[in-house]
Amino acid sequence: MEKFFYPRSMVVIGASVKKMNLGHIIVLNNRNNGYEGNIYGVSREEGDIAGAHVYDSVDKLPEVPDVAIIISPAQTVPDFMEACGKKGIKHIVIESGGFSEYSEGQNILEEKLLEIADRYNIRFIGPNCIGTVNFDIKMMMPFGFFPLTPAGGRVGMIVQSGGIGGSYLKEFGDNAIIPGKFAAIGNKLQIDEVDVLDYMIKDEKTDIVTIYLEGFKRGRAFLDLALQSDKPLIVQKSNRYDLTAKIAQSHTTALSVNDAVVDGCFRQAAVIRAEDDIDFINAVKIIRLPLMKSRRVAVLSRSGGHAVLTVDACAKFGFSLVDFPPAFIETVKTIYHTRVIAHQNPLDLGEIFDYTIFTKILEEALKLPDVDGVLFNHLYVSTYEAEMSRDFLGNIGRLVQQYKKPVAITMVTDANELVNISKNQGYPVFATPLSAAKALDVSATYYEEKTARDAKGIYVPSPVDMAAIEKIKKRCATEKRIPLTDEALQISGAAGIGCVAGVTVKSAEEAKKCKLAFPVAVKLLSRDASHKSDVGGVRLKIQNHKKLAEAISEMKKAFKNITPRPTIDGFLIQEMAAEGVECFVGGRQDPVFGPIVIAGLGGIFLEVFKDTSIRFAPVTKNEAMDMIKQLKAYPILQGARGKMTADMDAFSDIICRISQLLTAAPDIAEIDLNPVIVHEKGKGVSIVDSRVFFKSRV
Amino acid sequence: MEKFFYPRSMVVIGASVKKMNLGHIIVLNNRNNGYEGNIYGVSREEGDIAGAHVYDSVDKLPEVPDVAIIISPAQTVPDFMEACGKKGIKHIVIESGGFSEYSEGQNILEEKLLEIADRYNIRFIGPNCIGTVNFDIKMMMPFGFFPLTPAGGRVGMIVQSGGIGGSYLKEFGDNAIIPGKFAAIGNKLQIDEVDVLDYMIKDEKTDIVTIYLEGFKRGRAFLDLALQSDKPLIVQKSNRYDLTAKIAQSHTTALSVNDAVVDGCFRQAAVIRAEDDIDFINAVKIIRLPLMKSRRVAVLSRSGGHAVLTVDACAKFGFSLVDFPPAFIETVKTIYHTRVIAHQNPLDLGEIFDYTIFTKILEEALKLPDVDGVLFNHLYVSTYEAEMSRDFLGNIGRLVQQYKKPVAITMVTDANELVNISKNQGYPVFATPLSAAKALDVSATYYEEKTARDAKGIYVPSPVDMAAIEKIKKRCATEKRIPLTDEALQISGAAGIGCVAGVTVKSAEEAKKCKLAFPVAVKLLSRDASHKSDVGGVRLKIQNHKKLAEAISEMKKAFKNITPRPTIDGFLIQEMAAEGVECFVGGRQDPVFGPIVIAGLGGIFLEVFKDTSIRFAPVTKNEAMDMIKQLKAYPILQGARGKMTADMDAFSDIICRISQLLTAAPDIAEIDLNPVIVHEKGKGVSIVDSRVFFKSRV
Repeated sequence: MEKFFYPRSMVVIGASVKKMNLGHIIVLNNRNNGYEGNIYGVSREEGDIAGAHVYDSVDKLPEVPDVAIIISPAQTVPDFMEACGKKGIKHIVIESGGFSEYSEGQNILEEKLLEIADRYNIRFIGPNCIGTVNFDIKMMMPFGFFPLTPAGGRVGMIVQSGGIGGSYLKEFGDNAIIPGKFAAIGNKLQIDEVDVLDYMIKDEKTDIVTIYLEGFKRGRAFLDLALQSDKPLIVQKSNRYDLTAKIAQSHTTALSVNDAVVDGCFRQAAVIRAEDDIDFINAVKIIRLPLMKSRRVAVLSRSGGHAVLTVDACAKFGFSLVDFPPAFIETVKTIYHTRVIAHQNPLDLGEIFDYTIFTKILEEALKLPDVDGVLFNHLYVSTYEAEMSRDFLGNIGRLVQQYKKPVAITMVTDANELVNISKNQGYPVFATPLSAAKALDVSATYYEEKTARDAKGIYVPSPVDMAAIEKIKKRCATEKRIPLTDEALQISGAAGIGCVAGVTVKSAEEAKKCKLAFPVAVKLLSRDASHKSDVGGVRLKIQNHKKLAEAISEMKKAFKNITPRPTIDGFLIQEMAAEGVECFVGGRQDPVFGPIVIAGLGGIFLEVFKDTSIRFAPVTKNEAMDMIKQLKAYPILQGARGKMTADMDAFSDIICRISQLLTAAPDIAEIDLNPVIVHEKGKGVSIVDSRVFFKSRV
Repeated sequence: MEKFFYPRSMVVIGASVKKMNLGHIIVLNNRNNGYEGNIYGVSREEGDIAGAHVYDSVDKLPEVPDVAIIISPAQTVPDFMEACGKKGIKHIVIESGGFSEYSEGQNILEEKLLEIADRYNIRFIGPNCIGTVNFDIKMMMPFGFFPLTPAGGRVGMIVQSGGIGGSYLKEFGDNAIIPGKFAAIGNKLQIDEVDVLDYMIKDEKTDIVTIYLEGFKRGRAFLDLALQSDKPLIVQKSNRYDLTAKIAQSHTTALSVNDAVVDGCFRQAAVIRAEDDIDFINAVKIIRLPLMKSRRVAVLSRSGGHAVLTVDACAKFGFSLVDFPPAFIETVKTIYHTRVIAHQNPLDLGEIFDYTIFTKILEEALKLPDVDGVLFNHLYVSTYEAEMSRDFLGNIGRLVQQYKKPVAITMVTDANELVNISKNQGYPVFATPLSAAKALDVSATYYEEKTARDAKGIYVPSPVDMAAIEKIKKRCATEKRIPLTDEALQISGAAGIGCVAGVTVKSAEEAKKCKLAFPVAVKLLSRDASHKSDVGGVRLKIQNHKKLAEAISEMKKAFKNITPRPTIDGFLIQEMAAEGVECFVGGRQDPVFGPIVIAGLGGIFLEVFKDTSIRFAPVTKNEAMDMIKQLKAYPILQGARGKMTADMDAFSDIICRISQLLTAAPDIAEIDLNPVIVHEKGKGVSIVDSRVFFKSRV
């Protein structure tokens, strides 16, 4: 990637000499803004753009440029690429559109590009993109007019859409955030977000990586990078709903992924997710400050009304208000003698107009060991207090670095002033108490998730009996069917997950010969019915052999009435499990993120409330416990409603094992243990049912 | 209230001649900004402020001013008020602070004010407020410097906090929203939000009323006004959490109210609730446009990336994308011949730079009968397209009025330009696709809620047998106890709510003599145990007399071990109810909103998921059905998980009756039918348990 950010020379193919076309603008941008490398054009007609020579063919170039930018009609791109290959150019950015973003399925032109690149060992970005910018060396590939930005920025940006990239950069400018390196990767036919992210994480000049994606090319590799990153990654992942999937496909050929999976995986890897531009920019603003290490805040406010709004916002995000200790109050009193102010948290500064006092009180608040961060409401009329407010912001910046705690400041002032101070002061400001508190929540949550991520512990060794699984898989393949319930239970058994005692019989007669511990459950085994209970194939609490025979006979009869008549493969007779909370543990091979594991409470919790936890596999014990704690229904496991505390240790063990099973056996497309009956603490779990699908379904 | 907004003359008491104090500034504001009425000052020293004469006592005033503004230290206010009374001044605004906002409980000074007002028949606003503004006549009571605003504004504003009021007015200015009448009511010791709201709803010069409240003084009266209002009411109600209640109390003596109750009541009365300043201002912006009458949208976008974000936002708010009909596509093609644009919704306008085409395509979209509103993403660089964008906004404004459908436009441009265009163009713009869609959601939701509110139907007559209730109440009062379960069931019975058949006995012997339809349930009746099941006082599915006697004996034994030993008042034996969904219906006399009714599913749905619907009583059948449909667990009643559809008609009937019971019998502080077993459609409900508390608890 280095060459894409530090090219010593570039050629823009499709930069017309006469017409102000897009290629022309790229050359102009670099010439005018101060890029010091050589830059050439290639067009039909020889000539000159602002001192850059334009050749009429690639092979006439006087040197082999580090990067070629192709911006010519789609159908001409392969030939130009071939010419670049012949010339020995190894890095290409294809900005032209008109590829798979306008066609369904694989695109012939794109296949050609891949073939040529392969032949010449070319690395390329695009097509359908605006390429990279390195603000430090004033190198800029986008085809719109591009403003000059200060050097020295340490925030990286990777975007899938040039339009969004442009609007993010605009927001950066409006908020005194200096970008460092920028890459818009478009259709990411070859180079994708993972390549660029890998580069930016290693890049010594980048501190924070901001990302806009509509889909993942290599989701798992992305997560693996994120897991290792000490730099905050702020990601806006759009294309979240079914309604959007079709549109996004035509926009940048994005692969759709379940949004809840993204949320789970991001939490696990401590990736900060932003919902819209405002969230995104606020996240960048706050994450540049020291992190909130816990959730105890002090609130200082120039308006009582805004103090109320701030405390509402604190409550919403789970912050607590520190009780100011007597020593603090004494100190504040020596700083400012007041008539009516109550020295409590939030502290009302309504009567104070001396900004040096604000700074002093803020410093005292930051000194308090119990305070993890401060919210400050600053209301002022720019006519009178603009200058003082700028000095004050400077002081805050200094104090924040000194005490290593964030101060989120809400600025209530006229809009022009807010724009002005946001744009020109380095210290971030927020528009409302709610957005300031939300920003601190981003900081605190990132700190929590990163701490948990880095202390996630080791994977409990859980060997998987691959031979046993292979045997069942072969049998199913031969018989062209899915695994039956007893086989599915054997598969989880191969990962060390025991199920309730059971026996498989072919008939009521055979059942009669078995020694059974009544009451039992009986389940019909059929290759044609994966949802047994839907077809009446499950009977519970059967008390004796006679009732068992009746149940089997009734099941058979019910099956006779279904057309086409399903095969009956037998009957699984199981001991009834003891009481407990009905949970489930499942997982699948996600097309984007690879093996993922899902857990939650069963029944309505799953189906009506969609209350699940998702992670990418394998997970450690700590991660599995975090999954359980994340559930909205967690209080039920803790013993709400007079129930016993559930055996979460055993529950999390099943989650770990399923996650390892899916990792070890990628042929298992999907597994679902449901219900997993979680008993009282110390009494383990009972697995009574399982479904498995192998990858090659029949 | 008229005099507070149209005073022909005013006096500011506490307006010092020499010092630029707060009263001085009030006089200045009115003199400088063009208030045409007479204005006087009262201070220790006679003199003149910008041509307004200052007298050294109230009785020296040359006329009786319509309004006196008092802004002197708190302890001097009663004497000045007395002087006003003597002078014959009937309208006073007390801006001074230092009253109950700094003390716990009732304040002696405030009691004095009420007494004086009562004696002289004075109406007053405050204390601790900034009073009213009538922008039309340039009359302004606040004590800060106040800018001149254009006349003719039709948006009213009522705020409890002057600081918030100021920041709202600033936001109005930044968004080309012209305020009409403004009132900051502070501690609202006498005049409160209801008085002002009533005035503004009737005021012919006000179209929309915006409100900031930390608490309600007369919650029910507020709702009754809202119910009748054809004008949109946009309310930011803060002080939402326990953490905030204490702070808000010291700020403006706000009474705390459960936030979920506010949400339920606002929905019922079609009050628009805003969470923060940004929501608030966006609501005002969108509500000034024609309303969204359903949720079908067209999306037009200059950027593919922003189209993706817009569709995500549409999905989030439940909007559907209209399929563009062939005729529309043909028309668009005649307007603009394109190379690659797919003529789908969202429509990508990326290649178009001619603004007249935008207007034409937008008009075609608005013409489509299936389109209820349009989202437009406008990205531009102000250097080149500022002027065209202003014209375009003007055109949108015209089209919106012509087609009576809202267009929410997202402006992605540099910050100064966004401020500029927001401030100076009348047509509202939004900063991100998410905020634009959220605004349309406010519009659509308001339309839905208002339509439902105005078509809520009539109250089903449900006579309440007050004599029966009175009898039980007296008995309980005499015996100094709460109603027992059988009495509680009789109380709901008095509202026509039948319960399962049951008989009350004193002993096992008495039970033996009863003819019972086994299986039965037995419940211990005790004045000392309102939560029967917590003390083992409920046994279900008892099969015969022998088991019943055992159960009664065991209950008695269990009670003997409790210290102090509770009284046993008897045993209620009930037939077991048939299966069904366990729901509850309850209600109470809310200190703020009066009688409210609450319904939901019982058990974990209530206790873990807090899944309830709340309305103020009484409710109509339609309102009760809306309560049921609002539940997250509604799919369970609809028959999710293979269950039968529940009898929602019968369930809603119970809700109506409980709501009427609480309205008819305000002495019932709280009633809770739990469980209400809702059977299959057509089979009604079974009420098996009830708890009632009267107001005078023992």
